[in-house]
Amino acid sequence: MADLERVLKRIDEDLDQSLDRLFSLLRIPSISADPTFKADCRRAAEWCAATLSEVGFEASVRDTQGHPMVVGHYTGAGEGAPHVLFYGHYDVQPVDPLDLWETSPFEPSLAEVEGEKRIVGRGSADDKGQLMTFVEAARAWFAETGGLPVNVTVLFEGEEESSSPSMIPFLTANAKELTRDVALVCDTNMWNRKTPAIATMLRGLVYDEVIIQAASRDLHSGLYGSAARNPIHVLTRILADLRDENGHIKIPDFYEGVPELSDEQKASWDRLGFDQAEFLGGVGLSVPAGERDRSVLEQIWSRPTLEVNGIVGGYIGEGAKTVIPAKASAKVSFRLVGEQDPDKIRAAFRAFVTARAPEDCKVTFLSHGGDRAVSQPTDSDFVQKTRKALSDEWNTEAALIAMGGSIPIVTQFKRHLGMDSVLVGFGLDDDRIHSPNEKYNLSSFHGGTRSWARILGELGAGKNLA
Amino acid sequence: MADLERVLKRIDEDLDQSLDRLFSLLRIPSISADPTFKADCRRAAEWCAATLSEVGFEASVRDTQGHPMVVGHYTGAGEGAPHVLFYGHYDVQPVDPLDLWETSPFEPSLAEVEGEKRIVGRGSADDKGQLMTFVEAARAWFAETGGLPVNVTVLFEGEEESSSPSMIPFLTANAKELTRDVALVCDTNMWNRKTPAIATMLRGLVYDEVIIQAASRDLHSGLYGSAARNPIHVLTRILADLRDENGHIKIPDFYEGVPELSDEQKASWDRLGFDQAEFLGGVGLSVPAGERDRSVLEQIWSRPTLEVNGIVGGYIGEGAKTVIPAKASAKVSFRLVGEQDPDKIRAAFRAFVTARAPEDCKVTFLSHGGDRAVSQPTDSDFVQKTRKALSDEWNTEAALIAMGGSIPIVTQFKRHLGMDSVLVGFGLDDDRIHSPNEKYNLSSFHGGTRSWARILGELGAGKNLA
Repeated sequence: MADLERVLKRIDEDLDQSLDRLFSLLRIPSISADPTFKADCRRAAEWCAATLSEVGFEASVRDTQGHPMVVGHYTGAGEGAPHVLFYGHYDVQPVDPLDLWETSPFEPSLAEVEGEKRIVGRGSADDKGQLMTFVEAARAWFAETGGLPVNVTVLFEGEEESSSPSMIPFLTANAKELTRDVALVCDTNMWNRKTPAIATMLRGLVYDEVIIQAASRDLHSGLYGSAARNPIHVLTRILADLRDENGHIKIPDFYEGVPELSDEQKASWDRLGFDQAEFLGGVGLSVPAGERDRSVLEQIWSRPTLEVNGIVGGYIGEGAKTVIPAKASAKVSFRLVGEQDPDKIRAAFRAFVTARAPEDCKVTFLSHGGDRAVSQPTDSDFVQKTRKALSDEWNTEAALIAMGGSIPIVTQFKRHLGMDSVLVGFGLDDDRIHSPNEKYNLSSFHGGTRSWARILGELGAGKNLA
Repeated sequence: MADLERVLKRIDEDLDQSLDRLFSLLRIPSISADPTFKADCRRAAEWCAATLSEVGFEASVRDTQGHPMVVGHYTGAGEGAPHVLFYGHYDVQPVDPLDLWETSPFEPSLAEVEGEKRIVGRGSADDKGQLMTFVEAARAWFAETGGLPVNVTVLFEGEEESSSPSMIPFLTANAKELTRDVALVCDTNMWNRKTPAIATMLRGLVYDEVIIQAASRDLHSGLYGSAARNPIHVLTRILADLRDENGHIKIPDFYEGVPELSDEQKASWDRLGFDQAEFLGGVGLSVPAGERDRSVLEQIWSRPTLEVNGIVGGYIGEGAKTVIPAKASAKVSFRLVGEQDPDKIRAAFRAFVTARAPEDCKVTFLSHGGDRAVSQPTDSDFVQKTRKALSDEWNTEAALIAMGGSIPIVTQFKRHLGMDSVLVGFGLDDDRIHSPNEKYNLSSFHGGTRSWARILGELGAGKNLA
């Protein structure tokens, strides 16, 4: 039996144990955005390093100013073989609203829903489940052949869900160790349950928080109503003013650097047969929001967006309180495309808000990070070989798609290490990442592990990748 | 020495003990809006009943569907004497945001600030401190003379800060016991530190909560951004649309039944010398909000208002989360004047919101109560005698003023018992009721107690009040 076949057979036979290992990782509440879970983030890093070591890598936990990195190395494929960097993240999103979870977020389970098996729990899809597809594929190669077909450096971070403040310093300080022929990034979706995909366009992100302070303290609405400025009124009016009646964003020069789709791209996307009614209907909606003159697929893949991700002010408990709050705040994020400049967008947003605040209100902003959009070359040998491996595993041509979500690491690899990325992931649109009841299909986990086994084999098959 | 002089002397000498008793009541966290504090509300009611009994009333705790009432009786003044009803409330507002309190809300203390002594703690002004001015005045009369100059029924409720759901059933069921010649309501402010006041105009209130549900679950903004409806966008746009650029409320027929001030009222208010810069400056503001064509005093006393008292949606924790929430909600209240109809206003508000929500959004409303505005006759003997007593105590003519805050009990007394109210209170504009660091000046507490002693004496001086 050829190496690859033995590796795939082992993956199939070992599936239950693979799941047990994934569940161990899912049980660690490594919420990076919340300082309460700092020790849990470290625990997750240590678990990852120990697991990589057990599999066959030389691995270690590497301290940063924030949550630690995990780095692993395998160089046994020799100097002639390609050397790839695999990236994933072990941190997860916060779990609120907790009351909407049907199971406890950090007590993972395997559920059978509508005839398919699902791994349920925070991080199952984003990104622990995905990360483990690669680790389990490597485990099978090591176990069957004593090594991997290519040289591999592994980089797991613990701050992906909280703007990766330590990533650039870490990349810069360890550029020699981390700069490889290409990065393999596993944090994206399949096109659908049967069709694997390589994401070649990724939007950027600007995340900002605005806090409007009016009076020096909370006021009684019966004593001060109307006459005293209510910061909720100020904030809601400004937020409402950000968009016109056609859904276009009114911030001056916002659309600078936004490219139109080429006819070829348009045609290629049309062939995917995207069903917008099904897409919206799947989450209980029927009326497309956003720009009226753009299709839903354009909006989620190639158009910039503005979303208010959170708003709070005044009394939010049960019942009634007749208060005029002293302050109100909102979290606002933008997805960027093409050449849109995150710094310019942030500055223009802040100017837009500040210009509309009354002079006796104090406006404060907090930056929660940002990065440019990025496009990856689709004609490299790495992409072509990856596409072949995926197509072999899933018995259908892998799609080359755009992604609406921002994956800043791809920009950072390009900018700081000069390294391109190949984005392959096995998530599905209904995985509920960042939401209650996050899940990862067993078919994603199993097929993803098999896919990485094939990709490693394919990349190692030729020596002259470029 | 005349009875009144001995009573006033006793009040002066007994001040420290009076404060100790007030502090005992302030230590009970009787937050009526939060079910967590149900037992504390009952404890406060029991404390009040025991205190009234100790003073000389026949008092008891009376169960309701919600928090209990406290009723006390004194009829020793005989059939020829007037019989008044004294009203106060023993429940208090919630205390959030807790981190803005400089002392613990339910550990009352006496602080010296800018040369004046202040009783600090939740409920010190609203309404435990005010209620206790009457109780301590009655205590002194009982102690010096063995009784009171008039017959008195006392009614303390425990749901004033949560829309008084049990009040109307209780008034109706006990109409005979509670219908007296006039109600004395102690839940209002002085005109300023030196000038007492009787409030003769009170605004009404409508309090509503709107919940907008869009998608069936929280969504990832990278996957669904723009294309999926964001309920925060829907809500902020509707809230912003409630008012035009001149601060007028755009709900159809909202201003129906809103009277213009008479020239006489205008002139009388002008004489009060209200300083709008000082009023706003006291809370860190300088630009009047609200209706541009109305003075600040008009706005807070005689104009209807619309305030968003709370708003929440999406991620409101620390840091960033790229979520499109499934729902967003706001608490909205209106102050009503003249003949504005609370039911019509609520219906018009709901229609305004519903008409502006996209068809795939679900809009839900929760009512948190409401009542009409009310005006009291100013030429009755009760008002004239009360005014004389207040003017004697404070050595200046007591002002007849309007109040911005709504005191639904006054409407309920009128509607269900046919009883007018005389509104006398000793709060100050800077008491921070409903806010962190609520306080009640010692001069309010001491002068208020002395004032009630005089009012009781004055009301008992003649037998033919009408």
